[in-house]
Amino acid sequence: MAQPLIFHDDRLFPADPTTRGIARELYALVEKLPIISPHGHTDPSWFSTNAPFEDACDLLLAPDHYLYRMLYSQGIALKDLRVPSKEGVPNTDPRKAWKLFASNFHLFRATPSWLWLNYVFSKVFGFQVRLSAETADKYFDEINAQLATDAFRPRALFDRFNIELLATTEGPHESLNHHHAIRDSGWKGRVVTAYRPDAVVDFEDERFGDAMQRFAEVSGHDVYSWAGYLEAHRSRRADFIAAGATSTDHGHPTAATADLSAAESEALFQSLLKGDVTPEKAELFRAQMLTEMAKMSLDDGLVMQIHPGSTRNHNRQLFEAYGRDKGADIPAKTEYVQALRPLLGKLGNDPRLSIILFTLDETTYSRELAPLAGHYPTLKLGPSWWFHDSPEGMMRFREQVTETAGLYNTVGFNDDTRAFLSIPARHDVARRVDSAFLARMVAEHRMDLNEAAETVVDLAYNLPKQAYKLDQPLTATPAAA
Amino acid sequence: MAQPLIFHDDRLFPADPTTRGIARELYALVEKLPIISPHGHTDPSWFSTNAPFEDACDLLLAPDHYLYRMLYSQGIALKDLRVPSKEGVPNTDPRKAWKLFASNFHLFRATPSWLWLNYVFSKVFGFQVRLSAETADKYFDEINAQLATDAFRPRALFDRFNIELLATTEGPHESLNHHHAIRDSGWKGRVVTAYRPDAVVDFEDERFGDAMQRFAEVSGHDVYSWAGYLEAHRSRRADFIAAGATSTDHGHPTAATADLSAAESEALFQSLLKGDVTPEKAELFRAQMLTEMAKMSLDDGLVMQIHPGSTRNHNRQLFEAYGRDKGADIPAKTEYVQALRPLLGKLGNDPRLSIILFTLDETTYSRELAPLAGHYPTLKLGPSWWFHDSPEGMMRFREQVTETAGLYNTVGFNDDTRAFLSIPARHDVARRVDSAFLARMVAEHRMDLNEAAETVVDLAYNLPKQAYKLDQPLTATPAAA
Amino acid sequence: MAQPLIFHDDRLFPADPTTRGIARELYALVEKLPIISPHGHTDPSWFSTNAPFEDACDLLLAPDHYLYRMLYSQGIALKDLRVPSKEGVPNTDPRKAWKLFASNFHLFRATPSWLWLNYVFSKVFGFQVRLSAETADKYFDEINAQLATDAFRPRALFDRFNIELLATTEGPHESLNHHHAIRDSGWKGRVVTAYRPDAVVDFEDERFGDAMQRFAEVSGHDVYSWAGYLEAHRSRRADFIAAGATSTDHGHPTAATADLSAAESEALFQSLLKGDVTPEKAELFRAQMLTEMAKMSLDDGLVMQIHPGSTRNHNRQLFEAYGRDKGADIPAKTEYVQALRPLLGKLGNDPRLSIILFTLDETTYSRELAPLAGHYPTLKLGPSWWFHDSPEGMMRFREQVTETAGLYNTVGFNDDTRAFLSIPARHDVARRVDSAFLARMVAEHRMDLNEAAETVVDLAYNLPKQAYKLDQPLTATPAAA
Repeated sequence: MAQPLIFHDDRLFPADPTTRGIARELYALVEKLPIISPHGHTDPSWFSTNAPFEDACDLLLAPDHYLYRMLYSQGIALKDLRVPSKEGVPNTDPRKAWKLFASNFHLFRATPSWLWLNYVFSKVFGFQVRLSAETADKYFDEINAQLATDAFRPRALFDRFNIELLATTEGPHESLNHHHAIRDSGWKGRVVTAYRPDAVVDFEDERFGDAMQRFAEVSGHDVYSWAGYLEAHRSRRADFIAAGATSTDHGHPTAATADLSAAESEALFQSLLKGDVTPEKAELFRAQMLTEMAKMSLDDGLVMQIHPGSTRNHNRQLFEAYGRDKGADIPAKTEYVQALRPLLGKLGNDPRLSIILFTLDETTYSRELAPLAGHYPTLKLGPSWWFHDSPEGMMRFREQVTETAGLYNTVGFNDDTRAFLSIPARHDVARRVDSAFLARMVAEHRMDLNEAAETVVDLAYNLPKQAYKLDQPLTATPAAA
Repeated sequence: MAQPLIFHDDRLFPADPTTRGIARELYALVEKLPIISPHGHTDPSWFSTNAPFEDACDLLLAPDHYLYRMLYSQGIALKDLRVPSKEGVPNTDPRKAWKLFASNFHLFRATPSWLWLNYVFSKVFGFQVRLSAETADKYFDEINAQLATDAFRPRALFDRFNIELLATTEGPHESLNHHHAIRDSGWKGRVVTAYRPDAVVDFEDERFGDAMQRFAEVSGHDVYSWAGYLEAHRSRRADFIAAGATSTDHGHPTAATADLSAAESEALFQSLLKGDVTPEKAELFRAQMLTEMAKMSLDDGLVMQIHPGSTRNHNRQLFEAYGRDKGADIPAKTEYVQALRPLLGKLGNDPRLSIILFTLDETTYSRELAPLAGHYPTLKLGPSWWFHDSPEGMMRFREQVTETAGLYNTVGFNDDTRAFLSIPARHDVARRVDSAFLARMVAEHRMDLNEAAETVVDLAYNLPKQAYKLDQPLTATPAAA
Repeated sequence: MAQPLIFHDDRLFPADPTTRGIARELYALVEKLPIISPHGHTDPSWFSTNAPFEDACDLLLAPDHYLYRMLYSQGIALKDLRVPSKEGVPNTDPRKAWKLFASNFHLFRATPSWLWLNYVFSKVFGFQVRLSAETADKYFDEINAQLATDAFRPRALFDRFNIELLATTEGPHESLNHHHAIRDSGWKGRVVTAYRPDAVVDFEDERFGDAMQRFAEVSGHDVYSWAGYLEAHRSRRADFIAAGATSTDHGHPTAATADLSAAESEALFQSLLKGDVTPEKAELFRAQMLTEMAKMSLDDGLVMQIHPGSTRNHNRQLFEAYGRDKGADIPAKTEYVQALRPLLGKLGNDPRLSIILFTLDETTYSRELAPLAGHYPTLKLGPSWWFHDSPEGMMRFREQVTETAGLYNTVGFNDDTRAFLSIPARHDVARRVDSAFLARMVAEHRMDLNEAAETVVDLAYNLPKQAYKLDQPLTATPAAA
């Protein structure tokens, strides 16, 4: 028999009645605050074209690596879930793919996907029974019917979700046409971009060659000379700022930074361009580019986000058949204290610079990140990320970071998602976990209730606005000659 | 005055009344389920001979490294505890050794030994006062008296403990006579073996030379040629399967795997046999052998267990006087993401292969193991192990693994023990901690009660049976020529 | 409006009523026990001269790196807080500095500074309103007024704080004049020293050259010959023992130890003295010196404390302007298992030796430190340290260490502070967290209440006295010729 879908108002609050009471009180202060989403991966074309979304399978299942990763780990083939391979979208029946997913929904118990999906099913689509093999068809049909209505078009959902700002991510080699179209459309939704130069910075990235060609075309600079390459970055950063960007984002394998001379940098760049690419040289170039980006930030004010520590495409066979971003990126040990020293030794005390650090290696929270952020004025800590964007992960972040870095060296929540429908669900989890954490502090008399009330609003709303400079729009600096 | 021994029915359940109520409800579903013990180190001769156990000291104290390790750390000499040295069992009076232990029982407060021993004292022997200096003699006499009765012979306890299956561990160089004798005896208890080839795989193991000789004798193959060596493994794996084995076990210093060509492997093997043993070459050989074992598993279906990360025999002086396994094995940092890449790149997506990973390095739970097991169909995670086979250790495992790997990429509990009397105690701890974890999920509305009810049974009973293929007995493949 | 300063009697106790009730009961047993402070950094001249303390700013703010570190991380200049640079104390108005701090007191929410400071404000100075911009002047004036009274002189506070023993830290190159003066004064307060030789052991320390010169002068030995250098250590250790020392302290970058021959040690020492200082050689010398110190401890009985893992002076620009100890020391990954093997292989089973290990790398608690301390009779674990001297940090220490090392391989609490007024606050936090931890053990029926009652007193009082040999004053051994 189908189980009722009850999505309890007290979810994620500690069971102890005193603590739960305080958590409720704190959460009530933030539940309805607008969503600030300063880091994510939604598709700007959704908002420029405002076309209706596809069906349940192609919107909710096939693009969500949290879902097909887990199903794959239990022996389910990706093609049976309609996950596109290098040869394109498989011709699996979407309804069958959806049913396969529904029949295995028990795999997501006690995972964040369970919370996100049930929020979407309950709050966005209004279901009142649980997803299961039995209810799979009903779900598939009802979701598709709702997606076809105007109320489920991207802009309508953006408004319904009470999103004040949404950042997407684009590369220096990509056009910002959709962002321009959004602005030109007269629609009031604030959708901005962020500057993510990895594809033209990482000589080991399989996209590098193509991306550099397009970087040259779109920037109009000679990106194959060191001076022209830097100039192209400056010029594109200015373009991005004009499209609302307030931040850059750097997804490197490690947190390594370097402080080479201009001559050394140029020689390294030219040697790599000539094809002499070793792991060490590629790493050194990425390291130097973090410092170059930081120097540009002194001038144009873009906040730097550093996301290190993912071992990309770990599963060779899968990468060959399906390409990148297929749930096979595995975290690696990450070191920050020595890695950041070259950059911080040069610019770590400069009030013009602001760097937000992320990690996939939780061991660095109390050992490295909190002590660094609790000292350097240029450093702040991004929220728990990716595998750790989950109730337990968020709680560990607060428990391990707060006593050394405080709450005010953190920057609120990032949803970091391409799953647009889950954005309110994810922010809701963050607000609830922060309420639960602060409620415990109050219940244990480690903070006053009035302090917690002020702080919970700061974490949900004020800190992300400040940290990402969303209240002080940057002025695009024209690229110097 | 002697303290009463009260072993509370709510032990290990959270104090919050709501959560405790749910935990009780869940635990009631698994409390009496049969015990599946797919990985352990009991002595098969106990079950083939069914001879009565020795006295309290030699059964419970002298062989339990959890106990004498702690006592030794507080300055108590091993000989005073009747721990055998290389020169044999010391002639310490067992009653005195027992009393020394009893007088220091406070050292075990808040450790799992306290839970295990008090369970054994209370539930197996029926004591109603705590062990202490004062009650030491009473304990010694009563335990010995009970051990002399038929109700305390190994097979009677096996039945009383409701053990459905018990696996022991043997090496390729060891006979399976006791297992054969158990089968031939007509007794219905299911005691199986597991294939642990470390002694003939690790050139750095002090047992290597002797073990190879016996491997040659017992297998009838030329184990000093590469082809013969592999053939001997295949043949012995078949023998083990015939004796009920469904798994292999690999206790390596690291998780390193390799993917050498046959020629490279052979050259490496021959060079090592000639005595050119360096740490690097011994490591590479162990790494290659994991891949060789995986390839054999494709054919014969044995599930692989990998137990890396113990620095064996850390205390040089103690090793010289007492030999191995004397409580001086210390965990080391363990890396999985790069280490497993050669094996997983070759076989990680093959549905015939199943690998269960263990760790002594808890930092890998959320960073490496959960992401790997949450993606690769060949990987599952063994329970928290050895130093982490404890209430806090088990809870950290669930908290750090579940959100990424889910509950269904884990395999239930392993007791991993040679302390036969503690087996029900250990499974009881695991069932209680899982009930407590799931109860919190329900109390925080992160899982429905009916989902938790299904899951708690899966964790206690169904998952170990599935993961270790205990419902689908393997057919011994004859060794190919 | 000013908020009331309520410092609740139940602070730091879990909210669950059952657990809180037990925690209260346990805490009542230790609340008023005398303070044993065997490791800290107060200034012995306070107690020899008994002069009144300076004003609020120069006593409480400017020397407390926990405070100005956090304020600096949020962009506040150190000079505005009257933190002395290499050029001396800035001429900032102390009242203004205090007000700046008060206006940013929200930064300390949920940090240990909040707990420590509010304890000092409430219990030591008797304030009944919270510190804030609004109350900053009131605080400044009242604190200054109280500091000027006799009741706030160092010796009076020492008595009021119920300190039974307080250890300071001095180097071999420093005089013990203040300690001699305290003894000669007839005052009964027990203030002892501890032997910290880092400045004359670490060739990479910027103080090394000067410290060696003073070491030669104060010891009267030829510290530039290997034999004379060792002799000088022996002789100064005897001086320290005469001034009450029972321990040494070693603050090395890593836990590396070595076991070189005398000839190798001498050659290394001479080569370093000649200026051939490489990181590897400096590290090897520090490593060897830990073993030399351990050998001396066999003779004179001093307990060794090893505090590894701090990357000193990470912020280059700040170090150049302000010098060492300015909140820019950042923890590093620390390895113990291989690092300690040379020392433990030589002396790890010697009953005359006692070593207390500390860490800034919490990942070593369950993986390395608990297994080592749970085996070696020479090893004990110091409390959670520095960044981890906090409620969450202490709780993680207990949760991750206890199940393997037990409670009796730990040594009670160290306040490790130069902030004299915060000493009772810090011990109070430790006693409350231990009460809370043990209360959970009792509430979950993992320990009996009478066991917990005995243990909580041991942790607060008996273990530090035993571990630091405070009940068995050492006899100063005359330095051998």
